[in-house]
Amino acid sequence: MSYNLLKGKRGIIFGALNEHSIAWKVAERAYEEGATFTLTNVPVALRMGETQKLAEKCNTEVIAADAANVEDLEMLISRSVEVLGGKLDFILHSIGMSPNVRKGKHYSELDYDLLEKTLDVSAISFHKVLQVARKQDALNQWASVLALSYVAAQRTFYGYNDMADAKALLESIARSFGYIYGRERNVRINTISQSPTPTTAGNGIKMFDNLLDFSERMSPLGNASADECADYCIVMFSDLTRKVTMQNLFHDGGFSSMGMSLRAMEQYKKGCPEEEDPNHIYD
Amino acid sequence: MSYNLLKGKRGIIFGALNEHSIAWKVAERAYEEGATFTLTNVPVALRMGETQKLAEKCNTEVIAADAANVEDLEMLISRSVEVLGGKLDFILHSIGMSPNVRKGKHYSELDYDLLEKTLDVSAISFHKVLQVARKQDALNQWASVLALSYVAAQRTFYGYNDMADAKALLESIARSFGYIYGRERNVRINTISQSPTPTTAGNGIKMFDNLLDFSERMSPLGNASADECADYCIVMFSDLTRKVTMQNLFHDGGFSSMGMSLRAMEQYKKGCPEEEDPNHIYD
Amino acid sequence: MSYNLLKGKRGIIFGALNEHSIAWKVAERAYEEGATFTLTNVPVALRMGETQKLAEKCNTEVIAADAANVEDLEMLISRSVEVLGGKLDFILHSIGMSPNVRKGKHYSELDYDLLEKTLDVSAISFHKVLQVARKQDALNQWASVLALSYVAAQRTFYGYNDMADAKALLESIARSFGYIYGRERNVRINTISQSPTPTTAGNGIKMFDNLLDFSERMSPLGNASADECADYCIVMFSDLTRKVTMQNLFHDGGFSSMGMSLRAMEQYKKGCPEEEDPNHIYD
Amino acid sequence: MSYNLLKGKRGIIFGALNEHSIAWKVAERAYEEGATFTLTNVPVALRMGETQKLAEKCNTEVIAADAANVEDLEMLISRSVEVLGGKLDFILHSIGMSPNVRKGKHYSELDYDLLEKTLDVSAISFHKVLQVARKQDALNQWASVLALSYVAAQRTFYGYNDMADAKALLESIARSFGYIYGRERNVRINTISQSPTPTTAGNGIKMFDNLLDFSERMSPLGNASADECADYCIVMFSDLTRKVTMQNLFHDGGFSSMGMSLRAMEQYKKGCPEEEDPNHIYD
Repeated sequence: MSYNLLKGKRGIIFGALNEHSIAWKVAERAYEEGATFTLTNVPVALRMGETQKLAEKCNTEVIAADAANVEDLEMLISRSVEVLGGKLDFILHSIGMSPNVRKGKHYSELDYDLLEKTLDVSAISFHKVLQVARKQDALNQWASVLALSYVAAQRTFYGYNDMADAKALLESIARSFGYIYGRERNVRINTISQSPTPTTAGNGIKMFDNLLDFSERMSPLGNASADECADYCIVMFSDLTRKVTMQNLFHDGGFSSMGMSLRAMEQYKKGCPEEEDPNHIYD
Repeated sequence: MSYNLLKGKRGIIFGALNEHSIAWKVAERAYEEGATFTLTNVPVALRMGETQKLAEKCNTEVIAADAANVEDLEMLISRSVEVLGGKLDFILHSIGMSPNVRKGKHYSELDYDLLEKTLDVSAISFHKVLQVARKQDALNQWASVLALSYVAAQRTFYGYNDMADAKALLESIARSFGYIYGRERNVRINTISQSPTPTTAGNGIKMFDNLLDFSERMSPLGNASADECADYCIVMFSDLTRKVTMQNLFHDGGFSSMGMSLRAMEQYKKGCPEEEDPNHIYD
Repeated sequence: MSYNLLKGKRGIIFGALNEHSIAWKVAERAYEEGATFTLTNVPVALRMGETQKLAEKCNTEVIAADAANVEDLEMLISRSVEVLGGKLDFILHSIGMSPNVRKGKHYSELDYDLLEKTLDVSAISFHKVLQVARKQDALNQWASVLALSYVAAQRTFYGYNDMADAKALLESIARSFGYIYGRERNVRINTISQSPTPTTAGNGIKMFDNLLDFSERMSPLGNASADECADYCIVMFSDLTRKVTMQNLFHDGGFSSMGMSLRAMEQYKKGCPEEEDPNHIYD
Repeated sequence: MSYNLLKGKRGIIFGALNEHSIAWKVAERAYEEGATFTLTNVPVALRMGETQKLAEKCNTEVIAADAANVEDLEMLISRSVEVLGGKLDFILHSIGMSPNVRKGKHYSELDYDLLEKTLDVSAISFHKVLQVARKQDALNQWASVLALSYVAAQRTFYGYNDMADAKALLESIARSFGYIYGRERNVRINTISQSPTPTTAGNGIKMFDNLLDFSERMSPLGNASADECADYCIVMFSDLTRKVTMQNLFHDGGFSSMGMSLRAMEQYKKGCPEEEDPNHIYD
């Protein structure tokens, strides 16, 4: 179903790897809604993934670029404006990677060179995109920029490691740059804090399956899917949300506002041994 | 401009008094987007305001009801389902009133009967709407319910008085009932925390003009207007935001994420006498 | 152990019922730290509980008063100032009660008269204490006022019912009145958001035992006890925290900043049936 | 005045430069309260500042170390444990520096090498201190670790530049590591979000004088001073706050919970030209 919400809008979508990717779904929906855009990812992801297939489906092209590399971004953004025939109306930043997680480094035994890499790729790259776009004056008035985040930026999740710090930094950058872009060009910048999603990136997180189950039972509406996230991105790119900026928007079926649900507690209770009757504390 | 975002959807809109009302704008936009709905307000507001005019414009009817009165709500909701020909897909609660503010009672000298009235009309009425609708099984799966709030629920604003407490209560009710409605019927419940808006209700707040000016200069995108708020309500009622629930959504041009903007500070600075040079504290 | 942190300070402590009560522990610690104070509770609680025993231990008197009744509070506060020989330096509000919970009314089937009672006793009583004290000019400069809260004010917990809304209202009142008392008399007003605590009041909450267990395993330091809460209240009443005001202070072993701990997840996992292998969603 | 709150406790204090420094005040107060500790700073600060004078006053020694350098920290911590005669009970991290601010780089024109430096010195150094201390098993059970932050981590302040992002990262590290240290060793880790304070570091921020004035008038209790912050650090290091962890504690006279005060608004209003009568929007 299409509403023509993005008719005539131009954008760049970072991070579509394969059909499980949120960015992939956003691209499909943006195309349906009438947008034109370029797709981008790092060369190694382009080799591993199926981004080219998506590009054909969306009648566009893929531009290889490392979002942590300013020169790459300069090329990407100027090329995108050229290809699309005008300034940009939206950008999606769906990028995150922790070499500490990949190499099994515990949070209390971080490799600091790898931490620098985590922050650079997952958070500072967002600043670089915005700074390069501003230098090139590449964003239209009332453009909308989104980055994907996770509630670990606010609360600690076992095993999420230095990605939690990266997401906190990412959300701060969205606020800091949102102020500048807002007053200068009426551009809005927000993060969407999405349910845990079984993408290729999600699989790197320890005990991810149990987390998905817990999150599903805690959230009154269940976990939000990648498809649903794409819908939410579309409305945030549309002209109907022009005064929302510098926000971290939870798209999570209610998880972030839950302390304990009946469903999760009933599951939890099953794991509690009977002999551990905590009633004795009341006597 | 219409996107048909609410095609076939049915709803109830509380609180449209005159063309300055946010609820009025929401009604106009919902009508454009293909929704059918009933309008409601308390009898005294219907006499003072122009709701009937709006009803004609939107090809609907006005049903007088006091949102703090359970019997009135029972009638309103069953009548609405009947008139609209089916269960409801959305509800807008745009109701707030403090008799303490009206009677000039300072927050430190509240009349407790009036406080009870403030809370009942401005917050508990939201619970009543939801409880009555649930008893009548009047909401469709994936329905969306919104109430309008203000950042005073989180931070104290001089002169906002017991309305701040009412808004905090309102937002809590949205979370508490959002949990129940979510797990039972996939219904989402959110509040929109809107910029100060020059509606008839807004005028009751002390020093409102200066607050509007401050808020305008603090917000990178400026204050959000009633029209823009209506657009945001539309997307929150649409099928594109189905997994957003139990949230307080700031629609305020960025105000809530600002500590101090250059524009507001430059205005503030003008008021600072030159002789009060604070540099002396540094030497 | 005593540090003389409250030497020469005078106060009123609401809500000490028996030795499980947080207020009871605060009274014992305040006495050790050199404070003098009166104790108060509603007549029915005084008959059921052992407050008189505590009064003897702390060399003070019990004054029966309903914190929801303005006349009672006027008597209580003026009598306390008289008994203690001077204006007050601290107040502890440890009061909460939901007749809806007691009568087994589900949140979606609230009795509104009982809700009014919940809010009046658990939240508005705090405003009444502060308003009466202000009218009598009963608080010294730099006095410190505390009320006890729970994280349910921010996140929904199954079974906590309308107490969640009452706590949200309570925390808002602390902010609203904190502004006024701060600028006028340098008095600070805060809430302490305490771990679930096995007091007599705590027992009213559904599935409280499982919640205690979950909360214990989620919190890196485990649940905070009533004794530890008393220590925290002492420092908040002391002269060492004079510029902390309008805050909700989590005293919960870290629970509020946790999304998921390894310990809680391992317990949760035990309840998950093996056949429900969620890996199938990845292929 | 001393309460012996830190009798027998050992610690390390980072960041005492001169008598305006918060760390300097914390050292003086910790000494009064019975603690022994080492002082540390980078060599260049030790040359510029008067840390040696403070060391003499507190009967201790200064150990030069760059908190961003793991080898320096290894030496500092092992040397401190040796000098103090046992494991540590508290650490104060009062370190922040932005070379982008110093070189006048606007937030939209950041030098990324300098940003890396800002984050490394102001935030990642906190992780390094904690990781090195853990590797050396240098913290006692129930030790307390504090870092100083600012509300710019949550809300954007004009001119605070990349320090805002550094503070957001710092607060996230406190949560992430607080989880690990809590469950392993009952160590608590918190940040104190302090009022703007006229220290040598504060002077680097644009329009700092006007900000101090605004902050003073917004805060019901006025800005918190460095001396008052030191008192608050003492209670957070004491045994009376053992279950507070992973929190960001506002010590700011109420600023963080204010939207607009009468005092600040009256000042602001003075700057508003009369001819700009915003009343016209209401008619």
